[in-house]
Amino acid sequence: MHADENDFKGERFHMIKERHKGTFEKALGEGKVDPQMKSLCRFVAGTMDYFTSSCCSGRIMLIDLPKGEDKLGSRFHRKWHRTVAFNELWVGLNDESQGEVWFKQEPFILHIGCPDLERAQKVLQAMKKTGLKRGGIMFAAEGKWMLELMGTQNLAVPVKKGAKVLIERDYLKHLLQRANEKLKKNYALLKKFEKNCRRLLE
Amino acid sequence: MHADENDFKGERFHMIKERHKGTFEKALGEGKVDPQMKSLCRFVAGTMDYFTSSCCSGRIMLIDLPKGEDKLGSRFHRKWHRTVAFNELWVGLNDESQGEVWFKQEPFILHIGCPDLERAQKVLQAMKKTGLKRGGIMFAAEGKWMLELMGTQNLAVPVKKGAKVLIERDYLKHLLQRANEKLKKNYALLKKFEKNCRRLLE
Repeated sequence: MHADENDFKGERFHMIKERHKGTFEKALGEGKVDPQMKSLCRFVAGTMDYFTSSCCSGRIMLIDLPKGEDKLGSRFHRKWHRTVAFNELWVGLNDESQGEVWFKQEPFILHIGCPDLERAQKVLQAMKKTGLKRGGIMFAAEGKWMLELMGTQNLAVPVKKGAKVLIERDYLKHLLQRANEKLKKNYALLKKFEKNCRRLLE
Repeated sequence: MHADENDFKGERFHMIKERHKGTFEKALGEGKVDPQMKSLCRFVAGTMDYFTSSCCSGRIMLIDLPKGEDKLGSRFHRKWHRTVAFNELWVGLNDESQGEVWFKQEPFILHIGCPDLERAQKVLQAMKKTGLKRGGIMFAAEGKWMLELMGTQNLAVPVKKGAKVLIERDYLKHLLQRANEKLKKNYALLKKFEKNCRRLLE
């Protein structure tokens, strides 16, 4: 069965895919798609049986967390979807903040949708071939299966509390070096995943 | 259909389940199952249609990484499946190491197997009800579906390079406090997940 065949499942999937394709193209036009994610998302949008919904190519950030590290009330103090120079990080760190500021590097995260198990299995295959260990099928209904997948590279640590920076400048330099290295590894993994998607998805 | 019905799928699943149950009971006897994970794994082992394979309740550790943070060649410098006192961490940190030592707190990770999509959906439901955001169906074959799920709490940071400790004693105290808090949150999430499994899985 192909998703565009004239049955209920195919019909439903086709509608969902078109909607997500529209959202992706709008985001693309507004410059809201991460540069490192564009090529993969474009490829997926062009397939018959797959779409992407939310995605992030991986990032380095300063996040201001209220007491208890509650996500509610947290806010991005600085956020980059690319490697970062020390000075911009240092300026960001010394900028006014309220709670506890964490320095984080997070891996890419990607949601892929498809109409059935057979198609979902191909995404799992592409993940496995890439060596991607995190993710899987998160949702399965008639005509709509969703997978979430992500990289594993990460760094997360508190660096400032209230007005007080908790670490030395040299140590932050070391952290940033590691974060940048990890982000590059993360991008390489994403590229490898894209290559395998181009082989396995239709 | 129940997994113990006399058909090929049921037969295959039954064999797999019994094997994993045996492995779990052996590990239990040898004291190798994390205390915080025992109750959930015991419940799952007692169900008709589910089993657990590898699992970890979450941990705090010092890990010694060779150049490039290659997992190959890395080794646990210290590892605790519980909250940690500052002195034991400090002694561990100052103990001889080779590469770059990272201080990490990692969330729980759990693999659950079942015979079909219908049963896998119930695990996804239990995840959703718990607010567990990471994981999903990783593998699907006739009579054997596998899910991987994990918590989200984590902290990861380099703290020593060669013989040189990179951070101050007070800062490490702060990191440990956060790691212990996060580990406790992680255990609370695991308990909540167990409660939902007891409601939803049979």
